[in-house]
Amino acid sequence: MQRLKSSDPDFADKFTKLVESRRESSRDVGRDVFDILARVKGKGDAALVEYSARFDQHNLTTDEDWSIAPAACKAAYDGLDSDLREALELAADRIRAYHEAQLPNNRDYTDDAGVRLGANWYPVDAAGLYVPGGRAAYPSSLLMNAIPAKVAGVERLAIVTPTPKGDSNPLVLAAAHIAGVDEIWRVGGAHAVAALAYGTERIKRVDVITGPGNAYVAEAKRQLYGVVGIDMVAGPSEILVIADGKNDPDWIAADLLSQAEHDPTSQSILITDDADFAEQVEDRVDVQCAMLPTRKVARESWDAHGALVVVEKLEDAIPLANRLAAEHVELAVDDPEALMKGLRHAGSIFLGRMVPEAVGDYVAGPNHVLPTGRRARFASGLSVLDFMKRTSFISMDKSGLEKIGPAAVKLAHAEGLPAHAASIELRLK
Amino acid sequence: MQRLKSSDPDFADKFTKLVESRRESSRDVGRDVFDILARVKGKGDAALVEYSARFDQHNLTTDEDWSIAPAACKAAYDGLDSDLREALELAADRIRAYHEAQLPNNRDYTDDAGVRLGANWYPVDAAGLYVPGGRAAYPSSLLMNAIPAKVAGVERLAIVTPTPKGDSNPLVLAAAHIAGVDEIWRVGGAHAVAALAYGTERIKRVDVITGPGNAYVAEAKRQLYGVVGIDMVAGPSEILVIADGKNDPDWIAADLLSQAEHDPTSQSILITDDADFAEQVEDRVDVQCAMLPTRKVARESWDAHGALVVVEKLEDAIPLANRLAAEHVELAVDDPEALMKGLRHAGSIFLGRMVPEAVGDYVAGPNHVLPTGRRARFASGLSVLDFMKRTSFISMDKSGLEKIGPAAVKLAHAEGLPAHAASIELRLK
Repeated sequence: MQRLKSSDPDFADKFTKLVESRRESSRDVGRDVFDILARVKGKGDAALVEYSARFDQHNLTTDEDWSIAPAACKAAYDGLDSDLREALELAADRIRAYHEAQLPNNRDYTDDAGVRLGANWYPVDAAGLYVPGGRAAYPSSLLMNAIPAKVAGVERLAIVTPTPKGDSNPLVLAAAHIAGVDEIWRVGGAHAVAALAYGTERIKRVDVITGPGNAYVAEAKRQLYGVVGIDMVAGPSEILVIADGKNDPDWIAADLLSQAEHDPTSQSILITDDADFAEQVEDRVDVQCAMLPTRKVARESWDAHGALVVVEKLEDAIPLANRLAAEHVELAVDDPEALMKGLRHAGSIFLGRMVPEAVGDYVAGPNHVLPTGRRARFASGLSVLDFMKRTSFISMDKSGLEKIGPAAVKLAHAEGLPAHAASIELRLK
Repeated sequence: MQRLKSSDPDFADKFTKLVESRRESSRDVGRDVFDILARVKGKGDAALVEYSARFDQHNLTTDEDWSIAPAACKAAYDGLDSDLREALELAADRIRAYHEAQLPNNRDYTDDAGVRLGANWYPVDAAGLYVPGGRAAYPSSLLMNAIPAKVAGVERLAIVTPTPKGDSNPLVLAAAHIAGVDEIWRVGGAHAVAALAYGTERIKRVDVITGPGNAYVAEAKRQLYGVVGIDMVAGPSEILVIADGKNDPDWIAADLLSQAEHDPTSQSILITDDADFAEQVEDRVDVQCAMLPTRKVARESWDAHGALVVVEKLEDAIPLANRLAAEHVELAVDDPEALMKGLRHAGSIFLGRMVPEAVGDYVAGPNHVLPTGRRARFASGLSVLDFMKRTSFISMDKSGLEKIGPAAVKLAHAEGLPAHAASIELRLK
């Protein structure tokens, strides 16, 4: 964990290092993934059988080996404790409502030249969702990926998920039931992503693939970008808390730890204008961390990547926050609105003292799949738009073409494209 | 050129082959590009000097060698024939108006639980635009990339473009002046893309890179996806014309040739319900092509990739069109609106007999950077959204957290994330 003070003479250098620190694995799996994709493309299901046996000790023989039936998801849902089921339903309802408000409007208008212009949005036909097996299989993550696809209007939503030795997570199945997932395939890894992108005998090709995964899965998506649409490359999670000294240090410590407990590569940063408060938070992090069942991961993350930054006044935090372009930014101050005005680069902002980031992970409604690793500079959280695409259209009659066509003819000739010009000139004769 | 008839017994197979035909180069430049990117990242400007001398015979020594000043763009603009200047201005005005109507709305609302939710859109800070040198340098392409960035509100728009032996295209410079481009760097190729993504001593890093280029440029963008945002992978251009027998075959032939003259890998397809009309179009393509200055390219494209498809009735064209998911689709029929209703997968649609695709390339207003190679299944044309990103926000007071927090606590515990739960529980005490 680092302690930085904006008044220190080497602050600028240290902060730049913090911004530029790489937490992502640089492990090069590109070649391996390339080979896996080629093999699935060429051999289809046979390649999946082979890789599943090798990587997951899972034999794909019967239909039940290959997929999990909707009835099994329904059974998992029915088997949940009622309060957990209600919590999942509340989360799903709120996520659905937020994403419904996100649906884009079509446009259709006629301009002064009498030219009719517009654009229509359509869902993709089919989407694939990667769901990790084991520890990283979160029902909340399934809801956050699947519900936007369904709200977008995607007719076919197929999940791929590894089931090592046949095991699957009942909470994830229950979430699949709630979200209305259409197919669940018991394959994981880069080969599962290849199956979704290229199609095999059993698994029909999809148009867009989203969802988190390990380095192989992420690399497979990257290599298949263009064959299918994908969501943004995901890196380790991060939180930036901007807090004044009037907060309960225990609350802020818990917020920092909620990020740290995700993964040793997670990053938690506090920026405050109160040096005493920073020290109190540091103490509370230590005390709380020692009691956490997840303390090993949380400690490792906090020690390696955590930071406490003391600035002279709160406004000084904003340019620093814009450079960090963090996935999550909490503004635990009296007037969070004023600070938000200057905050241009952030995945999601949590306004005020009563909005811990974790509430956004589960039930607030906005998507928790957010840009990481400074990518909020240019990327957005997952949305219905990731499962839709836009078709523009142009219409005019001869008088419209007479108005704007001659300019196009000029430009076509200037660009050395005479058939372009001819296609307009013939109609204007 | 292929002739297909939906009544032929082998039609389904032949059409599937047409849909799946690959026109893109499979040349593997991945390793070369990987090395170039690493070298620019490590050595900065020195690597650019080296590559520019090697690939473009252009020495980067003085400031003038490195960049083209805004004044030079202004001079190129002033030096244009007035009718060409007016044509460029008309195009720019119409592109600007269309993209202004595309600007997304922010959202901000409070729901029944008293939770305030919303999202704000921001432009990225800086965008980079690749502009090819030589034959493929089109002023229209510059306008179509640069204007959406400026309409989005991007403050810094930097162009990279190779100037082999020092040469640049005055029309492109004039377009840069009109579009308000801020910097023009005389470097091209994969190394120029790397410079935009990583930054060098002279060229500051950008957040998003768009624009067409050769296989090296495309691969560089693909490898840098995630370091920066990029536009969709671009492949060879294509047109699908759906026409009844009441069209002038010369018009439709010109439309098919306007696509074919772009590149030998371009594809032009006609689907019609009138076999005689298809034959007439075929004749007119031959006659017109022979007279085109671009006949060599157009002939090669038409012979290798062109297709005439005869269906029994026009409605039968729509499922075929959806499978082709073409970049451009013309509906040259009496009631184009009725056909458009079923058309889910297309980059851009041209409605009616008086809208040749070329008018969309230059002056109609919608973007001419569109998904190719069946990517309209999942991708959209370039828009202001490619230069913007969205930040969601969440706000609530204690009563809001009391309503939705307990469900989040449940789910956090179920997912084995106790610090997530604690950050909410502490506030609810």
